[in-house]
Amino acid sequence: MIIILKQNASKADIAKLEENLRADGLKTNLIEGVEKSIIGLIGDTAKIDLDNLYAQDVVDSVQRIQETYKNPNRKMHPEDTVIKAGNVTIGGGSLQIIAGPCSVESEEQILTTAAAVKEAGATMLRGGAFKPRTSPYAFQGLRSEGLKLLIKAREQTGLPIVTEIMSADDLPLFEDIDVIQVGARNMQNFELLKELGKTQKPILLKRGLANTIEELLMSAEYIMSGGNKNVILCERGIRTFETMTRNTLDISAVPLLKQKSHLPICVDPSHAAGVISLIEPLSLSSIIAGADALEIEVHCNPQKALSDGGQQLKPEAFNEIMKKIKSLCGYLGRNLG
Amino acid sequence: MIIILKQNASKADIAKLEENLRADGLKTNLIEGVEKSIIGLIGDTAKIDLDNLYAQDVVDSVQRIQETYKNPNRKMHPEDTVIKAGNVTIGGGSLQIIAGPCSVESEEQILTTAAAVKEAGATMLRGGAFKPRTSPYAFQGLRSEGLKLLIKAREQTGLPIVTEIMSADDLPLFEDIDVIQVGARNMQNFELLKELGKTQKPILLKRGLANTIEELLMSAEYIMSGGNKNVILCERGIRTFETMTRNTLDISAVPLLKQKSHLPICVDPSHAAGVISLIEPLSLSSIIAGADALEIEVHCNPQKALSDGGQQLKPEAFNEIMKKIKSLCGYLGRNLG
Amino acid sequence: MIIILKQNASKADIAKLEENLRADGLKTNLIEGVEKSIIGLIGDTAKIDLDNLYAQDVVDSVQRIQETYKNPNRKMHPEDTVIKAGNVTIGGGSLQIIAGPCSVESEEQILTTAAAVKEAGATMLRGGAFKPRTSPYAFQGLRSEGLKLLIKAREQTGLPIVTEIMSADDLPLFEDIDVIQVGARNMQNFELLKELGKTQKPILLKRGLANTIEELLMSAEYIMSGGNKNVILCERGIRTFETMTRNTLDISAVPLLKQKSHLPICVDPSHAAGVISLIEPLSLSSIIAGADALEIEVHCNPQKALSDGGQQLKPEAFNEIMKKIKSLCGYLGRNLG
Amino acid sequence: MIIILKQNASKADIAKLEENLRADGLKTNLIEGVEKSIIGLIGDTAKIDLDNLYAQDVVDSVQRIQETYKNPNRKMHPEDTVIKAGNVTIGGGSLQIIAGPCSVESEEQILTTAAAVKEAGATMLRGGAFKPRTSPYAFQGLRSEGLKLLIKAREQTGLPIVTEIMSADDLPLFEDIDVIQVGARNMQNFELLKELGKTQKPILLKRGLANTIEELLMSAEYIMSGGNKNVILCERGIRTFETMTRNTLDISAVPLLKQKSHLPICVDPSHAAGVISLIEPLSLSSIIAGADALEIEVHCNPQKALSDGGQQLKPEAFNEIMKKIKSLCGYLGRNLG
Repeated sequence: MIIILKQNASKADIAKLEENLRADGLKTNLIEGVEKSIIGLIGDTAKIDLDNLYAQDVVDSVQRIQETYKNPNRKMHPEDTVIKAGNVTIGGGSLQIIAGPCSVESEEQILTTAAAVKEAGATMLRGGAFKPRTSPYAFQGLRSEGLKLLIKAREQTGLPIVTEIMSADDLPLFEDIDVIQVGARNMQNFELLKELGKTQKPILLKRGLANTIEELLMSAEYIMSGGNKNVILCERGIRTFETMTRNTLDISAVPLLKQKSHLPICVDPSHAAGVISLIEPLSLSSIIAGADALEIEVHCNPQKALSDGGQQLKPEAFNEIMKKIKSLCGYLGRNLG
Repeated sequence: MIIILKQNASKADIAKLEENLRADGLKTNLIEGVEKSIIGLIGDTAKIDLDNLYAQDVVDSVQRIQETYKNPNRKMHPEDTVIKAGNVTIGGGSLQIIAGPCSVESEEQILTTAAAVKEAGATMLRGGAFKPRTSPYAFQGLRSEGLKLLIKAREQTGLPIVTEIMSADDLPLFEDIDVIQVGARNMQNFELLKELGKTQKPILLKRGLANTIEELLMSAEYIMSGGNKNVILCERGIRTFETMTRNTLDISAVPLLKQKSHLPICVDPSHAAGVISLIEPLSLSSIIAGADALEIEVHCNPQKALSDGGQQLKPEAFNEIMKKIKSLCGYLGRNLG
Repeated sequence: MIIILKQNASKADIAKLEENLRADGLKTNLIEGVEKSIIGLIGDTAKIDLDNLYAQDVVDSVQRIQETYKNPNRKMHPEDTVIKAGNVTIGGGSLQIIAGPCSVESEEQILTTAAAVKEAGATMLRGGAFKPRTSPYAFQGLRSEGLKLLIKAREQTGLPIVTEIMSADDLPLFEDIDVIQVGARNMQNFELLKELGKTQKPILLKRGLANTIEELLMSAEYIMSGGNKNVILCERGIRTFETMTRNTLDISAVPLLKQKSHLPICVDPSHAAGVISLIEPLSLSSIIAGADALEIEVHCNPQKALSDGGQQLKPEAFNEIMKKIKSLCGYLGRNLG
Repeated sequence: MIIILKQNASKADIAKLEENLRADGLKTNLIEGVEKSIIGLIGDTAKIDLDNLYAQDVVDSVQRIQETYKNPNRKMHPEDTVIKAGNVTIGGGSLQIIAGPCSVESEEQILTTAAAVKEAGATMLRGGAFKPRTSPYAFQGLRSEGLKLLIKAREQTGLPIVTEIMSADDLPLFEDIDVIQVGARNMQNFELLKELGKTQKPILLKRGLANTIEELLMSAEYIMSGGNKNVILCERGIRTFETMTRNTLDISAVPLLKQKSHLPICVDPSHAAGVISLIEPLSLSSIIAGADALEIEVHCNPQKALSDGGQQLKPEAFNEIMKKIKSLCGYLGRNLG
């Protein structure tokens, strides 16, 4: 860690700061510059609170050299993490396609859609039971009833299920769910992350709309430091000034996360774009950039959907995209499922 | 509401869409354009789900003409809402200065700081007991113990207290708190908002780092539609590409929210800038732009603070800013407190 | 075009506005809503200035239904545009790889690099002679001397050359250049665009750091409306809050631009990421998303480069990426060059 | 300057880098950390090209400690710069209100508007003769004819004039103009900045829509390093995801620029918001935050304006705002004009 000192910092004050840092077991190296001086700190600096350093009168700014995330860091764990979810594994070279409706709406809807996505080649089933909606007047999901319908769909298709949690209070209801999703708006709901860290469930953690890649890794750290190492990171678009798409898919996040972390990476092209005609190109781009999984919204009858109608694919359109994905997997030598 | 139809939409398909809309009790007006046609919809369009319309094959795009937020809308409630919190009122012309430390750290720290901010002229006390921190290794707050210390500080100073909630499970602990704060990262934690809507507590709702003004109003709607009309909106900076400040204070949000909504508006210059030297100019700017309250971080000894050390003011610096604020209130004919 | 009227607009004022619009040769359709009314406008609305409509007291807002860009619009020109540059063609299915150094620095540097990128499979040569640098103290390019060296490199390799112009005054110097590049910072230098519109040179137009896709198309319109139809659009990353990459590559822009426009699309992964290890995945992603060309920075000795050292590939690393690109072209059935 | 070395950097490679740096006349200080090592550099590091350092294999990242801008830096020039423009001075405590139409449209329009803004208390006149418009089909300004009309308006009112330049070729036409404006889209048109640096004209330099404060200062450096010290910095809103306003006024930029630089600061609330009802609160906020000048769009008949109709004030509305501004100046003890 490097501490940059204020131009007018007195020698006495600098000495006092060094003394305090050494009392914390760190080694200090003062470099006196022409204008400003710096202190190089050696030792276990991860435990130092930057805010605290900033509060010292002589400190101008502070820069960490080591990353603050430990558990998700590839340096700590050079091998790819492979997570088991039902009968599939995420990470480690295979590709999982998680498909299904935005919301579970009825038994018929979810069973029909599940059968269709399985038929097309999806390897996991998604469906929202608890729905985070911007408006309190919009459909809020079938909640516990929706979870039961998902389980029924799994029984019929064999597809492991992925569904979103919105409150730690609901955790008991998720006991039989294969992968628990944390939505973008809850990426920094730290109380929820802590509770998920106490389970051993695979967690699909979505990046928040305005969160940096480092913050996503710190949220993974919240879950992992609690004891749950089964975290899948998900890029789903960030907010920018562009208005032709709902969000801007940060494709660079995929290879960057693969470099920085050993955790599997998922991409959600449906929410990233919000435009049906972009789902195919964004899916193929994400796979070739290294994604371990994709999450795609498919609805047996989007025109009757209770949410996100405009970005859910019809089964036939999904089938066409799956053909391209299978072909690309063949080219890349990756297994689907 | 206006529905813009696809260029290749057939007359039969358009007629069918119109029929469905009319079946929902709406009046339709088709205008056939040179290239595209549109349907103007009249009636209670607030209940229509945009996503559903987007899913219709003939629909190109949809535009709402009426705002979707009702309860916070000034059209529904032309008078300013005035909220009572302890012995003060927020909104309606007065100015409240909410000051105190980022975190409650000890009895001595909160009592000393509370006395100092009261002495300088603050009218309410802030202090975090439950702390949302990016890192699981950072100080997480004294939690229920912190709430007790805040109440003790109120007993000694008479200042009503504002403190953040992070989970609806903790609500019983907040029974004796004057104003419950919802942090930026929880602005769209809809399960929490719903629970807060069932209370009658004043809620200080902070704008998320990447949330639009309309989304802030929709989150207020979540609370208000549950029955709790006591919502204070808080601008605290948004995320942009600028790196010299922690966030970018969206000063335009203050007058815009005053125009669109009847709810009181608070500004948090400490988090918006993250730079101590900007707190004075941003405070004065916010007041003259129409803010009903400011929330400012003050710590009796920021160099020993367990969080946010670098952006907390010392009591003497806060006192200097309060002198300017009092003078400005005098000029504007506004009462402090 | 749809005009949404203010809630309090009087019938007389609305009638007057309709009359004025009809005097301009447009047909008006008034729809009276419960709260607000709207006017649907039919006719050649492209000539209407939105600003002017906004200035009318009764107007609340205006929404265009037709796109404002004409020349780059795929509706006007359903076939892909194919642009000839030297001995290659851009657009229409082939893939061009434009490679070379950030700046032309010396005869030896550009000739060595040109030979190396040709050897690796690049089909065009890039190199900056006029350099837009944030600091006036940074290397500003060899200017006209640089152009001469590029031409020499073309003589030796046969690769058509792409180089940036910064002022219309320099146009005569570019007579023997194959493709003239307009940098991101000049995307809305309208005086320059107008002058380029008077030539028949292929123009590689880079998207500005904070410009929307629609604005990029409008800048292409500036060039094309002047008579020069040879425009290549280039996505090179936009500015967001993320700090791990220099910019955020907007991969969605590639398929969106292909849908909206008939012009060829280039992607610059070097500037988009500013991180060498991301160039390969971003290149492959861009190709599979539909890019017609890539522009990649390669330097024979990046450690001695006078600009952008950190994001220029060494020839060996470029060669490895070219192997992947060639393989992908084989898979996609696309010709390189 | 601090150089952070890669984790796997060999001692020999580090030694070689140190040697090269010392050969450039710098003193190096190596600190060997647990994970990574750093080199602290002492001496005239401003001449070092960061890009070049990044290109060295052993370098992980580099951080400057000293600012790169010199001429605009307050450290180099602690006193406020005061710029003379016609009969007024900008900077140094006074407040200038620059008002007038978006575009000069006709003799009657500019003379009427100029008389009206002078009557209301404006101290300088603005008006666009060369207009940067997103669409080539929009009104492009009266160009040299517009400049003549502005001069006529100055003769009648005595108000110094501010107007935008779009190409260095037009410089001779601006000889009799008091302040030359560089628009946001040209903030990094470095060729133009260099030419302006050769004159002694006051330059009003607008911040680009996606440019940082540091980049604005570097663009000022371009002009100042050429010999022209008369630069006025202008904040006019940046691009964010918020859609209720045209741009987001970065109010923090005003006090930050006052701290970092000695140059006068102007704010343009008309372009920042694009909403007439926000001009008053944003004007007052900017003044109290420390702005030396405001630039406000006023048109004698906005409903007939050829550009920006929706954000230009009528003279009566401007007059009301001027009353508030005069009153605030009285309170702050600042002179208007």
